[in-house]
Amino acid sequence: MGIIVQKFGGTSVADADKIRRAARRVIQTADKGYGVVVVASARGKQTDQLVADALELNPNPPKREMDQLLSTGEQQTVSLFAMALDAMGRAAISFTGSQIRMMTDSMYTKARIQSIEADRIHKQLDQGKIVIVAGFQGIDEHENITTLGRGGSDTTAVAIAAALGADECEIYTDVDGIYTADPRIFKNAAKMDQISYDEMLEMASLGAGVMHPRSIEFGKKYDVKIHVRSSSEDKEGTRIIHEVPQMEGVVVSGATIQRDLAKIGLIGVENVPGNAAKVFAHMARAKVVVNDIVQTEISPEKANLSFMIGISDLIDAKKAIEEIKAELKCDGVFVREDIAEVSVVGVGMRSHYGVAETMFGALAQAKVNIDSITTSEIRISCAVDEDQADKALEAVCLAFDLDKPARLRRK
Amino acid sequence: MGIIVQKFGGTSVADADKIRRAARRVIQTADKGYGVVVVASARGKQTDQLVADALELNPNPPKREMDQLLSTGEQQTVSLFAMALDAMGRAAISFTGSQIRMMTDSMYTKARIQSIEADRIHKQLDQGKIVIVAGFQGIDEHENITTLGRGGSDTTAVAIAAALGADECEIYTDVDGIYTADPRIFKNAAKMDQISYDEMLEMASLGAGVMHPRSIEFGKKYDVKIHVRSSSEDKEGTRIIHEVPQMEGVVVSGATIQRDLAKIGLIGVENVPGNAAKVFAHMARAKVVVNDIVQTEISPEKANLSFMIGISDLIDAKKAIEEIKAELKCDGVFVREDIAEVSVVGVGMRSHYGVAETMFGALAQAKVNIDSITTSEIRISCAVDEDQADKALEAVCLAFDLDKPARLRRK
Repeated sequence: MGIIVQKFGGTSVADADKIRRAARRVIQTADKGYGVVVVASARGKQTDQLVADALELNPNPPKREMDQLLSTGEQQTVSLFAMALDAMGRAAISFTGSQIRMMTDSMYTKARIQSIEADRIHKQLDQGKIVIVAGFQGIDEHENITTLGRGGSDTTAVAIAAALGADECEIYTDVDGIYTADPRIFKNAAKMDQISYDEMLEMASLGAGVMHPRSIEFGKKYDVKIHVRSSSEDKEGTRIIHEVPQMEGVVVSGATIQRDLAKIGLIGVENVPGNAAKVFAHMARAKVVVNDIVQTEISPEKANLSFMIGISDLIDAKKAIEEIKAELKCDGVFVREDIAEVSVVGVGMRSHYGVAETMFGALAQAKVNIDSITTSEIRISCAVDEDQADKALEAVCLAFDLDKPARLRRK
Repeated sequence: MGIIVQKFGGTSVADADKIRRAARRVIQTADKGYGVVVVASARGKQTDQLVADALELNPNPPKREMDQLLSTGEQQTVSLFAMALDAMGRAAISFTGSQIRMMTDSMYTKARIQSIEADRIHKQLDQGKIVIVAGFQGIDEHENITTLGRGGSDTTAVAIAAALGADECEIYTDVDGIYTADPRIFKNAAKMDQISYDEMLEMASLGAGVMHPRSIEFGKKYDVKIHVRSSSEDKEGTRIIHEVPQMEGVVVSGATIQRDLAKIGLIGVENVPGNAAKVFAHMARAKVVVNDIVQTEISPEKANLSFMIGISDLIDAKKAIEEIKAELKCDGVFVREDIAEVSVVGVGMRSHYGVAETMFGALAQAKVNIDSITTSEIRISCAVDEDQADKALEAVCLAFDLDKPARLRRK
């Protein structure tokens, strides 16, 4: 018997009707002869309500107790889901993270999975039951309840699929798959039939929602086929898989915009060894994540140094800069918040030339000024004025035929 | 270090303010040098909401899933309670039934406690922490979550007090103790300083709320001192303890009214061996609990047979009677729903004469007609017309000085 893991997020189980709709999806799959394991999140706004309840009592609640509290949201969903299946005449059983021994480390609110007792699930599947597992939660070696943090339920689903050797891990969402670009910005974006883990990781890291990078990493590591699909429509979505040869034929798979960025520039920093290191050591201590570092010499003695940070880190970053400004002996500091980054991603870049040229050409033709450029093996990113970002994305998408399915694109 | 267990019911933790008030009570006790273990119920109407959510999906939800669902209510309270204590500067840790290995049988929705791992609690108390335990819940040997049913949180508190060898188990409620009679009916009812387990058991069985008989039985069996007291006022309540010699000086400790009763009479039942047995075997099959059976011979061949049942069982009982009516060859069946039972309870009855006489005399003087009488070693109950019940209770209370503290009563 093949096994399919199906993950339903909070909006897909928000009320009784939605739970019933999800339950019918599960039954469809079970009727094809699969053993089905459901992973479910907390219903709609339940988690927000619990967080509000906690903050009313304690502005800084202990993390262990926060996890103890929040894990009830998923526990409620899974028991209700099992009841819905029972009402439809199906044998079902729900499990908490504790009940399937979803062992994690003790990093409350962002724990990492260590192991799962797959036997408990197999045993129930062998008895013909549909198994419903609470996402997002686990326990540590001392039976303390932990939660997995952002992307937690996706990660639970992928981890269970890996532990069970499932045929596929289906992620049900309110979109019908992964698009070449955000369709709210580039209206003609094409749905992808498949995308490689590496590409999906880059796109997820660049802010293309749908799935958290962590669950994709997990899928890549344990070779879990992930299928992102719509919870409201019954059609094929996008499969996230290992790279296959024909993928290289496609140079660029997708394009993204990241907006929540700020750029910090240090002008005329004294060009002595260790000065740049000093800046980033100080940023690290302030827990600011730094990207896209660019250093350019402006004279034999001085250089300009700039880097990108998340906008949410800006206050911490500014404070850190103030503290070492004198020491650095730099001429000035500038901060740009009106900046965005447009990126193209594709494993095909590894073996194709001219991608950068095409991208820069498209931006030039659209009269978009490029502030700075950074690249990785399968990605090129350009920082641009934020108010030019939409236009930039569209130009790049058209240059790489991202309005067409992969097979119809110019090579 | 002495240990005190403090149990707070749903109304005592209904919102943030009430949780804070309860937390302050806990801190007061901790500041006296006690190790404190809190047992808490689900907040206010949370359980009702969860039941409604379940019924929306399944009119007859599987009991295992119901327990999985309902146990989240207490889990939420205990984590919030720990957060409140943390905000007040106290180290606290919350536990689910699973986390303290509150082992039960597998009778979902009405499981019975088998064992508790007291070491896990002791370890935290030894570290100076206040321990908050979810009431009402446990797990069976297969890690399935179970709930204890009616009176479950009281039973959890008493069981933990027993397992820890606690000095006392405090039950916080919205009344300030146990009264000689229901003060809503007999306004001058006196609060008792103490009552024996046996008396409290009888009174609880006779409908005097406050505590469920099951938790009192547990306390009696494991010798746990129970202290029923007010969650809003800081004063002594009523202690439930083993019988002490001076208790015998008091003949009657309390009086009760039970209203949710019906009386079923079978007139002229053929007086052959096994006929009565047939009736009660049939009632047992219909899961009707029968009390106060009275049989009187009306001729050498025939007898009248009557008994009391809970009003909620009346439909089932009537159906059962219909089924065997022909077989019994009885002349008629009557049902009285306008009936109530007034009882007096007291361990002193064991060694005192004249209690029945006093009671019947008081009822006669108040012109209350007695329908039937039943007694146990420490109780006398009279069935009366329901509309005379309040008057009957008052007459009985005055006859036994139940408006006075125990030490001031006439012997």
